[in-house]
Amino acid sequence: MAHPADPATTRAPAAGTTEKPSDSYVQSFARGLSVIRAFDAAHPAQTLTEIAQASGLTRAGARRILLTLVGLGYVQNDGRLFRLTPKILDLGFAYLTSMPFWNLAEPVMEALSQSVHESCSISVLDGTEIVYVLRVPARKIMTINLSIGSRLPAYCSSMGRVLLSGLDDAELDRVLQASDLQPRTRRTVTDIDQLKRLVADIRSRGWAQNDQELEEGLVSLAAPIRSRTGQVIAALNISGQANRTSAQEMVDRFLPPLLEAAGKISAMVSLRT
Amino acid sequence: MAHPADPATTRAPAAGTTEKPSDSYVQSFARGLSVIRAFDAAHPAQTLTEIAQASGLTRAGARRILLTLVGLGYVQNDGRLFRLTPKILDLGFAYLTSMPFWNLAEPVMEALSQSVHESCSISVLDGTEIVYVLRVPARKIMTINLSIGSRLPAYCSSMGRVLLSGLDDAELDRVLQASDLQPRTRRTVTDIDQLKRLVADIRSRGWAQNDQELEEGLVSLAAPIRSRTGQVIAALNISGQANRTSAQEMVDRFLPPLLEAAGKISAMVSLRT
Repeated sequence: MAHPADPATTRAPAAGTTEKPSDSYVQSFARGLSVIRAFDAAHPAQTLTEIAQASGLTRAGARRILLTLVGLGYVQNDGRLFRLTPKILDLGFAYLTSMPFWNLAEPVMEALSQSVHESCSISVLDGTEIVYVLRVPARKIMTINLSIGSRLPAYCSSMGRVLLSGLDDAELDRVLQASDLQPRTRRTVTDIDQLKRLVADIRSRGWAQNDQELEEGLVSLAAPIRSRTGQVIAALNISGQANRTSAQEMVDRFLPPLLEAAGKISAMVSLRT
Repeated sequence: MAHPADPATTRAPAAGTTEKPSDSYVQSFARGLSVIRAFDAAHPAQTLTEIAQASGLTRAGARRILLTLVGLGYVQNDGRLFRLTPKILDLGFAYLTSMPFWNLAEPVMEALSQSVHESCSISVLDGTEIVYVLRVPARKIMTINLSIGSRLPAYCSSMGRVLLSGLDDAELDRVLQASDLQPRTRRTVTDIDQLKRLVADIRSRGWAQNDQELEEGLVSLAAPIRSRTGQVIAALNISGQANRTSAQEMVDRFLPPLLEAAGKISAMVSLRT
């Protein structure tokens, strides 16, 4: 595809200039990304045929994209097998370092985790899901296995509800309508009107608690991180185990340090932005 | 651009079939990635003009790619400004979870960090650099600010030298020749022959120490993580401050638990792969 406005390609005349450029851009970029996402814990090294199947491409199409990714250094090929390279992390790193609380939040989270002896995380909203962007695990045998980049549904997590409380009513409605509201435990609230009331409470109160709605035994408390203009840009939480700390005990002991830490990070964000 | 072999595009006849497909694929993919990488801590939100400048594209070219990235959900546009979205992390997450020690290494690292009261990291080699893929920070006021995805030169870091010790002589030579060998402190070894001797020592001894060659005051110890076939696939380290723990003290106290942890992770990798 040629880009008439782009000096890098005008030297080599090529067909395709009559085609809508954005369509083919979207297509080739989306396909490249689908090949990257075909790799995971269960499939770290794959053959061309396996990658074609996983990404829904023809063998010829998958081969072309794999050669591109190899050329750019994002994939390596040892004989039959293809693998991702660590260069992939540069892309996520660009995102992480572009967050306004990057480098500021972690020391505050470490102090918070140390004072309550539980794990702390920060997440942001992406559609109907929350995405973990920072995490400080507690020093315990039984920790929750959630790392940077992992996702949970917003409607039934404490950070998710804090992030939903930052939306206006129309957006909140859209996200809840688009959510796959499943009873993940017998406590999970899945009724849209009830969820809206819970989110309204969180909006006025300034924090959320999750008492085993996501998973049996899992309790958590979350508070918003705000921009200088008061917009909710992220959520900070403390997660714990119901058999160690009851929901009420969590509020009594962990809410003051959580709110203090969230306020501190918000203040630092305001100073920076 | 049309891909004759790909059923998704054969329905819409388009020009461009005579062009070499891999060139335009590489080009559009590489440009999309250069736009993603134009964002960082100093430039989290940018205008079209700024992004075009940072990525070396024309305004028209940058606009086309930004619209693609917005369409795919990797960039958001609030009025004049463009920002990355957390969806970017999915790509790095695909890489992290495809590592053979994913989910296995972190508990071992946490126990190690807790026993020595210092930070632990795992990194892999990418060209002349090491890339951090896992990190467990110590609970201290003064911790080293290195997160997943961050990079350091291999030739002057303890993990880097461990990773270099896993290369054969020809590869080692290539990497050292391609490295920008700078004296980062007055202790940094920058002579290629001397570096080769140090790497050979590490190969036979099975661990590396860095005594303030990367940064004044920074000491570290590293050991290899090996695949079932004995190949060095990653390095595990403990980093510390010279004013708290001397290099010799580090070897005396930290080497045994480091080697034990690296052996444990290697054994788990062997069982899985």
